[in-house]
Amino acid sequence: MRTLLVIGIGAGDPRHLTLGAVDALRSADVVITLDKGEQKADLLRARHRVIDTHAPGTPVVTVSDPERDRRPSDYRAEVHRWHGERARRISAAITSATGAEGTVAFLVWGDPALYDSTLRIIDRMQEETGLECMVKVIPGITALQALTAAHTVTANRVGEPIHVTTGRLLPETSPADRRNCFVMLDGGTAWNDVAGPDTYIYWGAYLGTADQVLRAGYVENIGGEIAALKYTLRESHGWIMDTYLLRELDRE
Amino acid sequence: MRTLLVIGIGAGDPRHLTLGAVDALRSADVVITLDKGEQKADLLRARHRVIDTHAPGTPVVTVSDPERDRRPSDYRAEVHRWHGERARRISAAITSATGAEGTVAFLVWGDPALYDSTLRIIDRMQEETGLECMVKVIPGITALQALTAAHTVTANRVGEPIHVTTGRLLPETSPADRRNCFVMLDGGTAWNDVAGPDTYIYWGAYLGTADQVLRAGYVENIGGEIAALKYTLRESHGWIMDTYLLRELDRE
Ligand SMILES: C[S@@+](CC[C@H](N)C(=O)[O-])C[C@H]1O[C@@H](n2cnc3c(N)ncnc32)[C@H](O)[C@@H]1O
Ligand SMILES: C[S@@+](CC[C@H](N)C(=O)[O-])C[C@H]1O[C@@H](n2cnc3c(N)ncnc32)[C@H](O)[C@@H]1O
Repeated sequence: MRTLLVIGIGAGDPRHLTLGAVDALRSADVVITLDKGEQKADLLRARHRVIDTHAPGTPVVTVSDPERDRRPSDYRAEVHRWHGERARRISAAITSATGAEGTVAFLVWGDPALYDSTLRIIDRMQEETGLECMVKVIPGITALQALTAAHTVTANRVGEPIHVTTGRLLPETSPADRRNCFVMLDGGTAWNDVAGPDTYIYWGAYLGTADQVLRAGYVENIGGEIAALKYTLRESHGWIMDTYLLRELDRE
Repeated sequence: MRTLLVIGIGAGDPRHLTLGAVDALRSADVVITLDKGEQKADLLRARHRVIDTHAPGTPVVTVSDPERDRRPSDYRAEVHRWHGERARRISAAITSATGAEGTVAFLVWGDPALYDSTLRIIDRMQEETGLECMVKVIPGITALQALTAAHTVTANRVGEPIHVTTGRLLPETSPADRRNCFVMLDGGTAWNDVAGPDTYIYWGAYLGTADQVLRAGYVENIGGEIAALKYTLRESHGWIMDTYLLRELDRE
């Protein structure tokens, strides 16, 4: 049976790569890149650098998402058609690039378990096309770990729970869950909408890369500055990836 | 100034080690192990294997926790004394093993940010003894990532938040937070106390090691079996480390 390796490559620093990820990458006959249209050129470059460093010469096949009718008359039918078409493209890429015992690698930013669609797409692909594969996941360092490491802070305080959410859901997150709360996928500045006087923020952009920027302080004091910084950075780079940890501090 | 490297070594599999962790370990003059008394022999062995493989010959100094009066007449004073004594021991180990420009490595199971006390202890050490060091954290693969990878599942469903808590706090965790809920540090079988008819569990013990055991299913069906298994495994190994993801499935 074919083997599909879903490899987490870490969240920016090439040295996030694990020894297991290096081994997995070296064992692959081909790397398939899912071009979900949302990918930044810098991220694609990072992926190619990983391949060139650790498994140079491995062929890379890019499967781009099919065209999608964004205003279909029948929404469900269109989504169904679109999923089916994407599944067939991936399955075709796999079967044309590898024999029945071949090994295919998918490189995933961060960890494949965290806000990433690769595993779900592969599931669908297997359901829709009947192509049977053995799927193996190699975990990778997440942006959240890059954030806490860069700030030398812990995710939790002694015995406390940790919450992870998105910028969109942050406003409806309970105060209890906002005591130690990681936020990803925030296109805006949601920290400013939920902060109280004791809300502390550990913020990071382009973590693990040469462009890494860090800020930490009470949102009350630096929330506006980070918002302005995020705007400026996005303008100058053309894109931004940022994440943060909100923590309610018990001031004396 | 001295450099303290706090290195996450992953949660069981020696191939969890990142390239950055290997580099960091190789750069260290000495490895300091905090013997917090709770360590299992197998974990100590795993740590030594990491050193022997990647930085053989690096000296290892073990700092054991001072004796503690568990029933003091003045609780706060005793904790204060105990923290101070531990801080001095660690500081003494650092200064006697390295020069003013030396590099010390602390190896941490999983990731240093997740339910681990090393960073807090180092903070205290700096406060209490005035020994100034530059602290650098190298992130590591956590038990949670070893769990999701082993089960080839994602931590979150599309756009949903993720919660991480302890066995002790699970019973008071809200139903909303239990929709995608990781549990660590469960000395018992807390999954059975909170599960409803749609609660699914992804459970793993000794993850990443040769002894890894996995179970997945509705708690209703397999909760009791996992409880019995946990008991048996703990008996035969003399100890157990397990973690799990609870997920409320929307059955059709
Ligand atoms: C689609 S999610 C993928 C997360 C990834 N699978 C992981 O494990 O980190 C993308 C989000 O991750 C965060 N992110 C990823 N890499 C980052 C980096 N290097 N610096 C800051 N944030 C990052 C941002 O919040 C971004 O919106
Ligand atoms: C004190 S916490 C340390 C967590 C660690 N810093 C990490 O990042 O995974 C210990 C808990 O982690 C979980 N754990 C750690 N390693 C594990 C493994 N190999 N298999 C299963 N659970 C593990 C268990 O829930 C255990 O009670």
